[in-house]
Amino acid sequence: MIKVGIVGGTGYTGVELLRLLATHPNVDVTAITSRGEAGRAVSDLFPNLRGHFDLVFTDPAAGDLDHCDVVFFATPHGVAQSTVPGLLDKGIRVIDLSADFRIRDIAIWEKWYNQPHVCPELVGEAVYGLPEVNREKIKGARLIACPGCYPTSVQLGFLPLLEKGLVEPGDLIANSASGASGAGRQANVATLLAETSDNFKAYGAPGHRHLPEIEQGLVDISGSSVGVTFIPHLLPIIRGIHSTLYATLKNSEMDTSEEDLQQLYEDCFKDEPFVDVMPAGSHPQTRSVRGSNTCRISVFRPQGGDKVVVLVVEDNLVKGASGQAIQNMNIMFDLPETAGLEAPALLP
Amino acid sequence: MIKVGIVGGTGYTGVELLRLLATHPNVDVTAITSRGEAGRAVSDLFPNLRGHFDLVFTDPAAGDLDHCDVVFFATPHGVAQSTVPGLLDKGIRVIDLSADFRIRDIAIWEKWYNQPHVCPELVGEAVYGLPEVNREKIKGARLIACPGCYPTSVQLGFLPLLEKGLVEPGDLIANSASGASGAGRQANVATLLAETSDNFKAYGAPGHRHLPEIEQGLVDISGSSVGVTFIPHLLPIIRGIHSTLYATLKNSEMDTSEEDLQQLYEDCFKDEPFVDVMPAGSHPQTRSVRGSNTCRISVFRPQGGDKVVVLVVEDNLVKGASGQAIQNMNIMFDLPETAGLEAPALLP
Amino acid sequence: MIKVGIVGGTGYTGVELLRLLATHPNVDVTAITSRGEAGRAVSDLFPNLRGHFDLVFTDPAAGDLDHCDVVFFATPHGVAQSTVPGLLDKGIRVIDLSADFRIRDIAIWEKWYNQPHVCPELVGEAVYGLPEVNREKIKGARLIACPGCYPTSVQLGFLPLLEKGLVEPGDLIANSASGASGAGRQANVATLLAETSDNFKAYGAPGHRHLPEIEQGLVDISGSSVGVTFIPHLLPIIRGIHSTLYATLKNSEMDTSEEDLQQLYEDCFKDEPFVDVMPAGSHPQTRSVRGSNTCRISVFRPQGGDKVVVLVVEDNLVKGASGQAIQNMNIMFDLPETAGLEAPALLP
Amino acid sequence: MIKVGIVGGTGYTGVELLRLLATHPNVDVTAITSRGEAGRAVSDLFPNLRGHFDLVFTDPAAGDLDHCDVVFFATPHGVAQSTVPGLLDKGIRVIDLSADFRIRDIAIWEKWYNQPHVCPELVGEAVYGLPEVNREKIKGARLIACPGCYPTSVQLGFLPLLEKGLVEPGDLIANSASGASGAGRQANVATLLAETSDNFKAYGAPGHRHLPEIEQGLVDISGSSVGVTFIPHLLPIIRGIHSTLYATLKNSEMDTSEEDLQQLYEDCFKDEPFVDVMPAGSHPQTRSVRGSNTCRISVFRPQGGDKVVVLVVEDNLVKGASGQAIQNMNIMFDLPETAGLEAPALLP
Repeated sequence: MIKVGIVGGTGYTGVELLRLLATHPNVDVTAITSRGEAGRAVSDLFPNLRGHFDLVFTDPAAGDLDHCDVVFFATPHGVAQSTVPGLLDKGIRVIDLSADFRIRDIAIWEKWYNQPHVCPELVGEAVYGLPEVNREKIKGARLIACPGCYPTSVQLGFLPLLEKGLVEPGDLIANSASGASGAGRQANVATLLAETSDNFKAYGAPGHRHLPEIEQGLVDISGSSVGVTFIPHLLPIIRGIHSTLYATLKNSEMDTSEEDLQQLYEDCFKDEPFVDVMPAGSHPQTRSVRGSNTCRISVFRPQGGDKVVVLVVEDNLVKGASGQAIQNMNIMFDLPETAGLEAPALLP
Repeated sequence: MIKVGIVGGTGYTGVELLRLLATHPNVDVTAITSRGEAGRAVSDLFPNLRGHFDLVFTDPAAGDLDHCDVVFFATPHGVAQSTVPGLLDKGIRVIDLSADFRIRDIAIWEKWYNQPHVCPELVGEAVYGLPEVNREKIKGARLIACPGCYPTSVQLGFLPLLEKGLVEPGDLIANSASGASGAGRQANVATLLAETSDNFKAYGAPGHRHLPEIEQGLVDISGSSVGVTFIPHLLPIIRGIHSTLYATLKNSEMDTSEEDLQQLYEDCFKDEPFVDVMPAGSHPQTRSVRGSNTCRISVFRPQGGDKVVVLVVEDNLVKGASGQAIQNMNIMFDLPETAGLEAPALLP
Repeated sequence: MIKVGIVGGTGYTGVELLRLLATHPNVDVTAITSRGEAGRAVSDLFPNLRGHFDLVFTDPAAGDLDHCDVVFFATPHGVAQSTVPGLLDKGIRVIDLSADFRIRDIAIWEKWYNQPHVCPELVGEAVYGLPEVNREKIKGARLIACPGCYPTSVQLGFLPLLEKGLVEPGDLIANSASGASGAGRQANVATLLAETSDNFKAYGAPGHRHLPEIEQGLVDISGSSVGVTFIPHLLPIIRGIHSTLYATLKNSEMDTSEEDLQQLYEDCFKDEPFVDVMPAGSHPQTRSVRGSNTCRISVFRPQGGDKVVVLVVEDNLVKGASGQAIQNMNIMFDLPETAGLEAPALLP
Repeated sequence: MIKVGIVGGTGYTGVELLRLLATHPNVDVTAITSRGEAGRAVSDLFPNLRGHFDLVFTDPAAGDLDHCDVVFFATPHGVAQSTVPGLLDKGIRVIDLSADFRIRDIAIWEKWYNQPHVCPELVGEAVYGLPEVNREKIKGARLIACPGCYPTSVQLGFLPLLEKGLVEPGDLIANSASGASGAGRQANVATLLAETSDNFKAYGAPGHRHLPEIEQGLVDISGSSVGVTFIPHLLPIIRGIHSTLYATLKNSEMDTSEEDLQQLYEDCFKDEPFVDVMPAGSHPQTRSVRGSNTCRISVFRPQGGDKVVVLVVEDNLVKGASGQAIQNMNIMFDLPETAGLEAPALLP
């Protein structure tokens, strides 16, 4: 059994790791740390885990992580970068769900996250953990930078179009919407039920931290510079991301039919265990992936115009965070890639 | 025009006072205070008020309240009691939406609110602002203690039964549920959308601060001691309280039919502008009073047993708080009791 | 008092007309028709109207509409076109909330609505009731074709850009989302709470009936042909439309700053009672217009790129339907344009 | 592998059976029938099952059920009673999730379900499938009548009190609330999101079909006659039942402390895999059992009065229906009782 540790297990990605690992056949969660909740039973904070774990939060200084084979960081940005080097030195592999090691250009990271990066030397080694793009590199990695929730949906949705060079890379639009769990489990007026329920709004229109990550990923896929307009929105739902992507067919590709696009997407993802291309003409729903690691995608060319519209759904806490992290772990440890991630989504 | 001031206008009862007063024909809101938001435009905090008010929050120390005819306190408990005496001395009438002056027994107040009461001398003068019970006293009052949201629904629901002496006063159950706005506009993990949405739970089963207020009110109505079991619940909705009340018919009253009960309720409330007894057999819905000052009530005697079941709905921010406060103001200033409170509920 | 009739008052736009007209100072609702509910009290179907109306649904054949000054059609498409001529002949003015008279090109109407149009001769006379564009024509109109909910938000959002010729009219994207009341009050599995709540999805990606209406309106505004990609989405909220609009600045207009755009929007709408341009940098929320006739708009130029992003919110049942219909009536009958529409939105 | 058939797989209990059986280690679902959807892929109707099942709905007449070891009926009442005898004759065991075989008194069944019972001869043989009460009988049963959702929560909650004889059996109150999936997957105005969301109401106050089932179950447990007042409510959530139960301590048992009650509940359920007695003082939440077969219970004696208050939560589609059905199957086929039911609830 692989011994797993979790740093920062009091947030939503932490409890989601525990929920998924509870039924993972090859894993023991042996340590979970939290400064604020040290000494408290995990199941006291998260009653859905009663009967599934006897774990107690421990102080990170207590050293419980040292006996782990792999440690997940489910922490706000800025935390992992100071602790990861010590763990790697002890031979422990690390999967960081935060943004700390996602952006290769340190200056860009420091600008968007508004703080100095204290561990730039590991950024180059970190593998960006999007298996559909980097599966081979993930296998041998010591340090995984798990992709952000929005960037996962946007990259997977644009991937076939950009790989194939069908659309103008400088004219991409990602209109995304996320459930409120994306804002984290922290006291905040703006995400109270009484503020967020029965409501919808955009936010971060002038610029959102996931934009540079999206740009970097799309550059990697397309091999050229890209121009992306990214507008996130806040949905009155708990879980789920829906990205509506718009791209413009190159003049030279205007004879690509909607059927061709459907075929392209099906071919591109046919071996992917967690990307499901929907039947032609159907629209994916966030609830169809609620609690599961699957990303579902549809592609359209409305009215035969020059726009390609791609619809992508994922669960922001699963394929957008903890599930993808476990998928990475499975690849790193040569387990079946779907281990622990096989349950269907909860619908209704 | 009556000059109105509001203390603590940054919470939900504050913005609700403003929403309702925006179309009140006899009122000018001339001052609104907030320590934390002094200098900020009200419409900046509450975008629904853009175009309706030019008001700016001012510091309470600035003295803007001194020119008001009446001041509403939309503050947490403990605030009004230290400021009210000074306003009354200046001849300003006060309507306190908080719990400060609701409980006549100071010791009980201090026990449940866990702090000393700094203005016990005014508690006796304060009129409990439930117009259906105290309309005459409200007319001449200087200081109104506006009822709590749960107590309003429970008292109105039990009122006809207790006045008439039909049920055992020692065997009353109030099973109530409130929307999340009842928890106020404050940063809090427990009322995040991601915690509260798609969820339901009881809370405060061992004891809730509204219990002594309910008991006092029911004693006043029944003229005898009462025994009440009160269990509040948290609904995943923004506004609305639903109380399901259970009482036991006295042995001597077992020949009271459901039709008799219906007639009793209709007679009792027939002159009340804000209590609507529903047709026999129908169930009131919280949305049927969303945004309105109306309380709707149904009464049943299931299977002809000894239990009377009363269903009561109100909007916790209107009849349960700000609307009732304005109703009190209308009575105090000899305005039509329904002034500013005439719009139908928002349904759907 | 203007005598108002309503045809088809059992749906959401019908009850919304009644809710708004209940406090309109210049109107008496004298007739409301429904084949299915004839003989039933309106307040029996819509409990929020208890105490506000004594109206009973009557059969349309009973002739009650003949005594009205104006009749609103709150019916599915296909109904108004067969009844309107008779009313106009009697000198009764008509405001049709359905799609029957919105599209000037009969062939296009028949294609998208999949049925023959039985009253093409009145289509040319009908005035498209978007006051911000057609106020003068509305004044003298006998027949108003009230705009669709999505088209209202899209046209108002693009209006300043297209009037000024700043953006490429052939490269417009409207990414819109609507609350579930937009689907109407009809039994339907797809809009059950258990299907729609805690969920988000696009629909109609291959083509939606509001597309030709949007195109016609934008052509009228811009004076040129347009290309629009329109993707609607279903929100798990009751009321509210949010449109996120994307346009591409013309090469010749790339020196238009975000500040210039803000100024353009403020100038364009400064005399409009129901269009509110938000302060620079803010994001409108659907709840800020819940129950009100206001449309709120923000404009951005993210990262100084070539895209202009416009955010628009409205209540689909008010500015998107019944409120706009009343605004049209006010203009037609020379009443203050805001009569009956002055209450602030319900927030929270 | 046990070969499983499902009749009526197009409703919520049907898709929930499939979701849970997808990861059950000992089961193959070999047939699923639906008259209306025959020929359609299951995953077409329920996109969460894409990739998990290749099943196609078949007509019940096609005989696919004949090769099953066990057949689940996820049908409306009235269907199973006409088909079950034929299956039993072929040696196929049956687990009926509908109400057809729950009530032993045929006359009572016919009164509440308002139709003649066509298979009274099997009612006596059917075992009421509440494992916490009837585990031994379930083992050998050919026909299981799976309990209703509300009755499961009410019986489990009152069980320790009634078994021990601590409370007055004639004075029981069950105030219950259910998510909207309890109303089934059928087109219906009353459960549209626009009608049910942001709303709360009681229904069935004069009498609900689950009342006789609750009464029968409580009589079985207590060994005496009972008096129950049962008021169900409709929650604006998808899944979840919360029952707030009130009982009155017998005079002779007034020295039973809250600690005694806590101990009683913990002892009573200590060997039950799917009943979790919460720590003293805590309140169970419906989300803590979302998607899981667990029932969580808390017990209180507020203010030391004569009322015992029991709070019970379950997922109406799992422990209240499909999960409990699988638990019964596990017992019948001598599998581990928790097989296929081990995943934690989905929280948040």
